[in-house]
Amino acid sequence: MIKIGIAGIGVVGYGSLELLVKNKELIKQRTGQDVVVTAVANRMPKDITNMSNARFYDDALAMLDAEKFDVVLELMGGSGGVALEFVKKAIEKNIHVVTANKALLAHHGNILFAMAKQYGVHLGFEASVGGGIPCLKGLREGLAANEIKAVYGLLNGTSNYILTEMTETGGSFEDILAKAQQLGYAEADPSFDIGGIDAAHKLSLLAAMAFGNEIDFASVRTDGISEITPVDIAYARELGYKIKLLALARKTPHGIEQRVQPVMLQKNNPVAQVDGVFNTVVVEGDFIGRTQFNGPGAGDHATASAVIADVIDIARNVNVPPLSYLELKSPKPLKLEDAENSYYLRIQCMDNPGSLAKITKILGEAGLSIVSVLQHEADHNQIVPVVFTLAPAKRPVVLDAIQKIEELNIVIAPVTHLRIEKF
Amino acid sequence: MIKIGIAGIGVVGYGSLELLVKNKELIKQRTGQDVVVTAVANRMPKDITNMSNARFYDDALAMLDAEKFDVVLELMGGSGGVALEFVKKAIEKNIHVVTANKALLAHHGNILFAMAKQYGVHLGFEASVGGGIPCLKGLREGLAANEIKAVYGLLNGTSNYILTEMTETGGSFEDILAKAQQLGYAEADPSFDIGGIDAAHKLSLLAAMAFGNEIDFASVRTDGISEITPVDIAYARELGYKIKLLALARKTPHGIEQRVQPVMLQKNNPVAQVDGVFNTVVVEGDFIGRTQFNGPGAGDHATASAVIADVIDIARNVNVPPLSYLELKSPKPLKLEDAENSYYLRIQCMDNPGSLAKITKILGEAGLSIVSVLQHEADHNQIVPVVFTLAPAKRPVVLDAIQKIEELNIVIAPVTHLRIEKF
Repeated sequence: MIKIGIAGIGVVGYGSLELLVKNKELIKQRTGQDVVVTAVANRMPKDITNMSNARFYDDALAMLDAEKFDVVLELMGGSGGVALEFVKKAIEKNIHVVTANKALLAHHGNILFAMAKQYGVHLGFEASVGGGIPCLKGLREGLAANEIKAVYGLLNGTSNYILTEMTETGGSFEDILAKAQQLGYAEADPSFDIGGIDAAHKLSLLAAMAFGNEIDFASVRTDGISEITPVDIAYARELGYKIKLLALARKTPHGIEQRVQPVMLQKNNPVAQVDGVFNTVVVEGDFIGRTQFNGPGAGDHATASAVIADVIDIARNVNVPPLSYLELKSPKPLKLEDAENSYYLRIQCMDNPGSLAKITKILGEAGLSIVSVLQHEADHNQIVPVVFTLAPAKRPVVLDAIQKIEELNIVIAPVTHLRIEKF
Repeated sequence: MIKIGIAGIGVVGYGSLELLVKNKELIKQRTGQDVVVTAVANRMPKDITNMSNARFYDDALAMLDAEKFDVVLELMGGSGGVALEFVKKAIEKNIHVVTANKALLAHHGNILFAMAKQYGVHLGFEASVGGGIPCLKGLREGLAANEIKAVYGLLNGTSNYILTEMTETGGSFEDILAKAQQLGYAEADPSFDIGGIDAAHKLSLLAAMAFGNEIDFASVRTDGISEITPVDIAYARELGYKIKLLALARKTPHGIEQRVQPVMLQKNNPVAQVDGVFNTVVVEGDFIGRTQFNGPGAGDHATASAVIADVIDIARNVNVPPLSYLELKSPKPLKLEDAENSYYLRIQCMDNPGSLAKITKILGEAGLSIVSVLQHEADHNQIVPVVFTLAPAKRPVVLDAIQKIEELNIVIAPVTHLRIEKF
């Protein structure tokens, strides 16, 4: 029998308990083991007696002291605090740990994975990236024969939902966010989701696994979606693009690039086609080419599917290096100034004769090639948005040109710029 | 050191050798092992000396007698014959086997998996379904916590390429097949691909793994794509559908349904969006909901990625029941007459007054609800195609109505019927 303790009976904890009860027989048929929850901990009282006679604790650490477990599930959340203490303590007691906590691993994963190795225990974290999608297993095991070139996708369902709705309804960021909160797709404090932090946590784990470096969350360049306007959404459509909050990690000759940013993707790109609350992860490898994993990136039941997949791996004695490599290298992040990309620029300028000439002169002098230009009729204030898409160029060159454009007296607002990704 | 023998140096065998040479260091970093090809066998001479100093045999069985291996790769193909003998012999010598051979496993998998269990060796077969896409690992391990409801997708790149081109160009099946053969997307004898047999082989493996029954290839209902006409492609588009060769296995109250058939899928369905030579596999489970794996379903390098993923699993000592369950049940196939589906009917009839009334009377008397009707202007021969889509009904009821319609003297050709799938 495998004795399980669950720390945190929120949505995912409760879902995991439900799964272990409902699919008990099935799990036995697949593992040969009885997997039983013997105790749970939650700060607030929670009645689970209709499902399980697991003992209840209001303190996860006290539960660890009082009980004997084979595996504990850390489903409390938080990037440190009790969750960190709980995982460390479990590992030191030679108990396997499964967690869905990307924030914890993004900040403390290097120490925790090293401890797990030292103590010879599993630290499963499939549920921490892509919710129920078995993308970490896919990358770590299914694609382990490949040199990984890049891994990218949509890792935050809340942001994807908001951008999808903005695209489909033309609504503003603020209105759609409010709707998402009503529907339970966004939290009361949505800053981690819409600010790209949640996706950045996840990306740092994918990147470490893909490239064999230590987790380097600090190097993830992160921009959120709150500045995206219906105007840019409309221009994206006109140009054949969709705006998505892309999380991307890529091996370059100058180091590992990691970033979470709203970007323009061609509308028939397989990543752009994943809409709503769904997540997607694409892996590019030297032999596989590209493969894509799509599915529910959140939700009590879907996430429980991934949590218990890790428990089943433990029951089956699957013992694979958690980040795929036996040893991790020190990270070598790409310097921002070495990044080369295509850009979309939207410039609000006065509809004066010669305006366009002044702007294109700056772009030309910077050596920036214009791929396309869009200018519609001016509104009643004689203000006209001019949109450019540019050929790939180094970031500092583009930012410098933007600054010069903003200094023109015909330009009346900061220039909006978004990267254009093609793959 | 892990000593590898490769039987069959065709495209996949050569690709696997290339991968093991090119990514040797990487594989060592991920497994701690040197994985080395020490011998290869191919009926025809093949020069591999620029890549490897593996010994060369023209007889795979003789290679097994002469060499000592830890793992052999069966990449010869064929549903029996030497491939079968080779795999059996290797297992009896306690050598792990990795194969990409779906035909072999569809026909002899039950015996071979039982032998592998008896001798305590791995029988890896990730490459046999979905080419490079790690979908078997996803189902067997990543989704192992779920009761699987259904698994479906596009499992044959040749058929998907042909249907995609027919949809995009309006060309005939014969023309596009000829083009596919020129481009190397279809074999000289394409019958296994376009007849649905190849997809049926793969589906029988997915179904066994999903539902824990023995492989039951004989029960897969299989229809190919050679009867699909540009006319039906055009109607599908008009109705908002795409025609795809769908492979589907589903748990029903009356048994396991397994079928490979051209069907109509709503054009925004995630399966319908996978075009060209790509494959896709969707898994529906009780906790995950739906998750989808997309990628290259064939090709030397992509398939090698999956072959060597199995080798890496062996090197990492990952020991999971190959079909996910420890014991397999006898299969309980769904009887055809119990299947319930929506249908598309295209009826070629004379443009006489009362034609439509006669047809709709038959449908009405059979209790078949009409969802939509399309009738365009008659051509110069006064022949008019009438298209119906029907609400879900039992198959025998629909077939019986079709027969009655065909007996009408106004109906001048066999009625075309295709299932409509919604999920």
